[in-house]
Amino acid sequence: MRFEKKDFPLIRVREHLETGPIVLVTSHHEGHSNIMTMGWHTMMQFSPALLGCYIWDGNRSHSAIRESRECVINVPTVDLADQVVAIGNSHAEQGDKFAATRLTPGKARRVKAPLIDECYASFECRLFDDRIVDEYGFFIWEIVRAHVAQIDAPRTLHYRGQGSFMVAGTEIDFRKQFRPENL
Amino acid sequence: MRFEKKDFPLIRVREHLETGPIVLVTSHHEGHSNIMTMGWHTMMQFSPALLGCYIWDGNRSHSAIRESRECVINVPTVDLADQVVAIGNSHAEQGDKFAATRLTPGKARRVKAPLIDECYASFECRLFDDRIVDEYGFFIWEIVRAHVAQIDAPRTLHYRGQGSFMVAGTEIDFRKQFRPENL
Repeated sequence: MRFEKKDFPLIRVREHLETGPIVLVTSHHEGHSNIMTMGWHTMMQFSPALLGCYIWDGNRSHSAIRESRECVINVPTVDLADQVVAIGNSHAEQGDKFAATRLTPGKARRVKAPLIDECYASFECRLFDDRIVDEYGFFIWEIVRAHVAQIDAPRTLHYRGQGSFMVAGTEIDFRKQFRPENL
Repeated sequence: MRFEKKDFPLIRVREHLETGPIVLVTSHHEGHSNIMTMGWHTMMQFSPALLGCYIWDGNRSHSAIRESRECVINVPTVDLADQVVAIGNSHAEQGDKFAATRLTPGKARRVKAPLIDECYASFECRLFDDRIVDEYGFFIWEIVRAHVAQIDAPRTLHYRGQGSFMVAGTEIDFRKQFRPENL
């Protein structure tokens, strides 16, 4: 299923990333697009919207992402579980992952890396700070454009290790117990 | 409910943190213990086990944690939702959060900050690298001891913003589709 995504306010991207979903990171470098799975990421700031993430330097995407200084962070739901697992267990040498997984590249607005149309949310990122990449493999990104399809309670995937995923469950609302300034 | 936690292998802590749960961070400094809620964290390395997290410098815990150079990361389940929300919406000035929330401090092995007995998992942390704390409020911790109660599919809380939480749902097993070296 391809989602119709709309522009989404950057100040609210935490709503789709703070829960800790497995994401698909797309890159584009020297004429080739690539996709990798990634689970080690965190919000770091609201405005500008900063996201930090670890990318293993043995992954082919590492150099493509570092050299192009951009990527797109795409959030899949459980409907894409087979593709997420296939991508996480393949190598770039095995060819075009878009073709192999039948995922559809979409055009980003501010970066060359593609969106993934079958993901309900996509965040265009530009490298903001690479000072600890050499030591920790940790990239600090500025999210420069956000695309989100408005679906309720997206059933995202959350990796538990050992080949097992937790699927996002029910939502509970505590708004009335929050201080207004914390909402 | 207080959990009977057991020593847990550091190499496997990702199983309880990578899913992105809201955590309760305890600190101990100058004779006082404190608790804060935290949702912006990520695994950074398997061994030594490194965890990165953002702590707002306006939070009272920030200075206690930075000066004591240690903390405990405790993982609550949905049974503690009221306490999680109460802690996230109070100030240190309002007094002892252990007493106010009726949570039970437990003795850690390698740090002075307390465990929380009602959390099913607790990770003792020592500050590993503070080089980007000034600029980003981002701490890099080494997890030096892990305590986990063995429960299936813990119903952790994952913050969506706007006072709403996603509760961890079902688990799906893709082990057979994983390369052995990726498990």
